[in-house]
Amino acid sequence: MKADPSSPSDSFSHLDDAGRAQMVRVTGKADQTRRAVAEGFLRLAPETVEKLRRQALPKGDVLTVAQVAGILGAKKTAELIPLCDLLPLHHVEVRLTPERDQIRIVGAAETVGKTGVEMEALTAVVVAALTLYDMCKAVDKGMSIEGVRLLKKEKASVVERTAS
Amino acid sequence: MKADPSSPSDSFSHLDDAGRAQMVRVTGKADQTRRAVAEGFLRLAPETVEKLRRQALPKGDVLTVAQVAGILGAKKTAELIPLCDLLPLHHVEVRLTPERDQIRIVGAAETVGKTGVEMEALTAVVVAALTLYDMCKAVDKGMSIEGVRLLKKEKASVVERTAS
Amino acid sequence: MKADPSSPSDSFSHLDDAGRAQMVRVTGKADQTRRAVAEGFLRLAPETVEKLRRQALPKGDVLTVAQVAGILGAKKTAELIPLCDLLPLHHVEVRLTPERDQIRIVGAAETVGKTGVEMEALTAVVVAALTLYDMCKAVDKGMSIEGVRLLKKEKASVVERTAS
Amino acid sequence: MKADPSSPSDSFSHLDDAGRAQMVRVTGKADQTRRAVAEGFLRLAPETVEKLRRQALPKGDVLTVAQVAGILGAKKTAELIPLCDLLPLHHVEVRLTPERDQIRIVGAAETVGKTGVEMEALTAVVVAALTLYDMCKAVDKGMSIEGVRLLKKEKASVVERTAS
Amino acid sequence: MKADPSSPSDSFSHLDDAGRAQMVRVTGKADQTRRAVAEGFLRLAPETVEKLRRQALPKGDVLTVAQVAGILGAKKTAELIPLCDLLPLHHVEVRLTPERDQIRIVGAAETVGKTGVEMEALTAVVVAALTLYDMCKAVDKGMSIEGVRLLKKEKASVVERTAS
Amino acid sequence: MKADPSSPSDSFSHLDDAGRAQMVRVTGKADQTRRAVAEGFLRLAPETVEKLRRQALPKGDVLTVAQVAGILGAKKTAELIPLCDLLPLHHVEVRLTPERDQIRIVGAAETVGKTGVEMEALTAVVVAALTLYDMCKAVDKGMSIEGVRLLKKEKASVVERTAS
Repeated sequence: MKADPSSPSDSFSHLDDAGRAQMVRVTGKADQTRRAVAEGFLRLAPETVEKLRRQALPKGDVLTVAQVAGILGAKKTAELIPLCDLLPLHHVEVRLTPERDQIRIVGAAETVGKTGVEMEALTAVVVAALTLYDMCKAVDKGMSIEGVRLLKKEKASVVERTAS
Repeated sequence: MKADPSSPSDSFSHLDDAGRAQMVRVTGKADQTRRAVAEGFLRLAPETVEKLRRQALPKGDVLTVAQVAGILGAKKTAELIPLCDLLPLHHVEVRLTPERDQIRIVGAAETVGKTGVEMEALTAVVVAALTLYDMCKAVDKGMSIEGVRLLKKEKASVVERTAS
Repeated sequence: MKADPSSPSDSFSHLDDAGRAQMVRVTGKADQTRRAVAEGFLRLAPETVEKLRRQALPKGDVLTVAQVAGILGAKKTAELIPLCDLLPLHHVEVRLTPERDQIRIVGAAETVGKTGVEMEALTAVVVAALTLYDMCKAVDKGMSIEGVRLLKKEKASVVERTAS
Repeated sequence: MKADPSSPSDSFSHLDDAGRAQMVRVTGKADQTRRAVAEGFLRLAPETVEKLRRQALPKGDVLTVAQVAGILGAKKTAELIPLCDLLPLHHVEVRLTPERDQIRIVGAAETVGKTGVEMEALTAVVVAALTLYDMCKAVDKGMSIEGVRLLKKEKASVVERTAS
Repeated sequence: MKADPSSPSDSFSHLDDAGRAQMVRVTGKADQTRRAVAEGFLRLAPETVEKLRRQALPKGDVLTVAQVAGILGAKKTAELIPLCDLLPLHHVEVRLTPERDQIRIVGAAETVGKTGVEMEALTAVVVAALTLYDMCKAVDKGMSIEGVRLLKKEKASVVERTAS
Repeated sequence: MKADPSSPSDSFSHLDDAGRAQMVRVTGKADQTRRAVAEGFLRLAPETVEKLRRQALPKGDVLTVAQVAGILGAKKTAELIPLCDLLPLHHVEVRLTPERDQIRIVGAAETVGKTGVEMEALTAVVVAALTLYDMCKAVDKGMSIEGVRLLKKEKASVVERTAS
C-alpha cells in the first residue's frame, strides 16, 4: 500500500479494487513544497518558424500570448482533469524557445501541498502548445504537438521564512 | 484579404500589421456546418497497457473517464485558448483505442457557425491524453503525449431539416 | 431513428450501439425558440421557514442570492453536464416561494437553437436549492431537496421581429 | 457566538444583523480533516432501469459519466454557491447504485481546512443526478430528483504522516 | 414597453413590475452584427509609466499580458454578470496606450446576435486594467482605475458573404 | 531582493531580469491572515439614483444582485488575472451605498495564505460595478466606473483557536 510517487507502483492509484475510477486520498499526507517541470514541442515547418521570427517575434507577442495561456491553463488543471486535486498553486512558469523546426515549451509549477503538481506542469505545456497552434494554423497546415513529458518532480520540507 | 482555411496563407491571421496578437474577425462569414477530427497518442510501456487491459479495461472506467474529460475539455476551448472564438458546440466525440505501447485518441467536434472547430477537436484529444496520463502516472514514469495533429476539417452548407 | 423529444423513445440517444456514451448530434436540426420550465423544493422545518420570514425575508436577500445563483448556474449547464450542448442562453428566470415547510423553486430557460433547454431549467432549480441549503444549514440540520422535475417543454418557429 | 456545526444555531450564520447576506468568517478556525457524505436519488420508471441494465450498464458507461460529472461538479462548488468558501478539495467520491425504480447516488468529499465540505458532497450528488437525467431523458419523461440530503459530517484533528 | 437600446428608457429592463431582478427576454429580436467599444484608464505615477517604458515595454510583455487577459475576460462576461446573456463572441480587441500618468485601455467586442455586447467590451477593459494593476502593484501603491465607460455601440443587418 | 508589500519596490516583481512576465514565487512565505479592502464608484445621473431608490431599492434586489456578483467575482480572480496565485478565499464582503450621483462599492477579501488578497478585493468591486452598470444601462446612457483603488491591506500572524 505504498504511494511513493518516485518509483512506479504495481497498481493504479486511481482505480479501486473493483477497477472503478477514484480520486486518490491524500488528506493524511504532509504539506511539502512540491515542484514539477514538463516539456513539449510544437513541430512546424522551418519556414513557419522563419516567418514567426521575422513577423511575430520582434514584438514578442505570439510567445507571450502562449505563455499567458499556459499559466492560466495550469490554474485550470483540476477543472480539466477529473481525478486531480483542487489545490492552491503558488508559481507557474512557461518558457518558449523557437528552434529550427519546432518551438520548445517548458512549463514548471510549484505549490505547498499534499500532492505533486506534475499535471499542472503538463497542462501548462499543452495549453501553450495549443495556443501557438491556433495562432499559426492559417500559415502552416502540418503542425503537430510532440514529446510532452515530465522532466522533473521534486519535493522538500517546508521551511518557512519568518513572516514577510 | 483571403481567409480560406483550406490552403495555407502567407500571413498570420492572428497578427495585425504591427505584429500584435489579435482575434480574427469572422462576423461576415456565413454559418456553415463545420466539423474537424484530430488524433493523438499517449505513449506508455507495453506492460502498462497490459495492466490496463487486465485491471481497468474490463470495467471500461479508465477510458470513459478520459472520454468524458475530453468532451468537457472541448467545450472549454475558448476559455483556454485566448484568440479562439466563443461559439456553440453541437457535437463532440472522443474515442480511445489501446494499442501495443500506446493509446490512440481520436477527437471530433462539430458546430454550425462561422469558424472551424479544429481547436475544439485538438483540445478534446489533449485533455483526454492528460487525463489518461494522470490515471496511469503511479504505474508508469515514462509516458509521453505524441503526434497530436489535425486529421480532417470539413464544412458544408446548412441544409435544415424541417423542424423536429 | 426518431428524435422527437416530446414522446419517449425506445433507445437512449446518449448511447451508441455499443452502449458507449456520446453527445447527440443536432447539427441538422432547425433553430427554434425553445423554452423549458422546471420545479423543485427545499424541504425544511416550519420553524426555519418562520425564522426566514422574520429575519431574512424582509430584506429579500436570501431569496435573491438563491435566484442569482440559479441564473448563473443555468449558464454553466454545459460545463457541468458532460453530454450537454454548449449553446447560447437568452433568458433564465428563477422564482422562489416560501410555503409552510418548504421553499418552492421554479426555473425557466429560453433559447433560440437546435436543442431543448430542460437541463438548463433543471440546473437553475438545483443550484438555487443548494444555495438556499447553504444559507440555512447553520439553523436547520434536517433539510432535503425534493421533487426536482420538468414541468413543461415547448418549442416554436422563430418569427423574428424587424430589427429593434 | 457559537459555531458548532453539529447542533442547530438560533441564527443564520449567512445573515448579518441587518438581514443581509454574507459569507461566514472562518479565518480563525483551525485546519482539520473534514469529511461529509450526502445522498440523493434519481427516480425513474422500472422499465428505464431495466433498459439501462441491458443496454448501458454492461459497458458501465452511463454510471461512469455521471460519476465523473459529480466529481468535477464538487470541485465547482464555490463557483456555483455564492456564499461558499473557495477551498482545496482533496478527495471526492461518487457511487451510483441502480435499484428497482431509482438510482441511488452517494457523494463524499474530504479536505483539510477550516470549514466543512457538506456543500461539496451535496453538489457532487446533484450534478451526478442531473447528468443521469440528461442521459435518460429521451427514454423516460417522468423522472425526478428526490431525497438529496446530508448523511454524515465529520472532522478530526490533522495527524500528519511523516512525509511521503 | 419599448426596448430600443439607443435611447434611454423610463424603466429598468432588468426589473420586473414588482422590482425584482430578471434577465431581459430577447428571443424575439433579430440577429444583427453588434459591436461595442469601451475605454478606461489605469492611473499611475509618471515614474511608474517611465519605469514601465524602460524595463517592461521594450519586451512588450506587460501590455500583451493585459491584452490577453482582457480578451479572455470578455469571453467570461456572462459568467461574471448575472443578468447578461450567454452568447457567442466573434471578435474582441484590446489596445493599451501608455500616456504620461496613465495607461489608456480600449476594448471592442463584436458578435452576430440578439443583444448588444457593451458589457463584453467593458469587461475586457476592466480585466485588462486589473491585470496591469496586478503587475505594477509592487512598484506603485497609488494606482486607481478611472473613466471606464462605453464609447460606441453599433448594430447592422447581417449581410453574409458567400461561404468562405 | 525585498518583497515587503507595504512599501514600494524599485522593480516590478512580475518581470524577470529580461523584462518578461512571470508569477512571483511565494512558496517560502509564511501563512498569515491577510485582508484587503478596496472601493470604487459607479457614477450615474442623480435621476437614475432617484429611480433606483423608488423602483428597485425597496425590494433590495438590484444591490443584492451586484453584491452576489462581486463575491463570486472575487473567487474568480486567479482565473481572470494571469499572474495571480490560485488560493483559498475565506471571506469576501461587498457593500453598496447609493449616494447622490453614484453608488459607492466597498469590497473586502480575507484569507490565510502566503500572498495578499488586494486583487480579490479589487475584482469584487469591479464586478459589482459592472453588474450594476448592466442593470441600469437601459435607463442611463452616461454611466462610468471611477475611483477603483485599494483602501487597506493588512496581515497578521495566524492564531488558531482551538478546534471549533
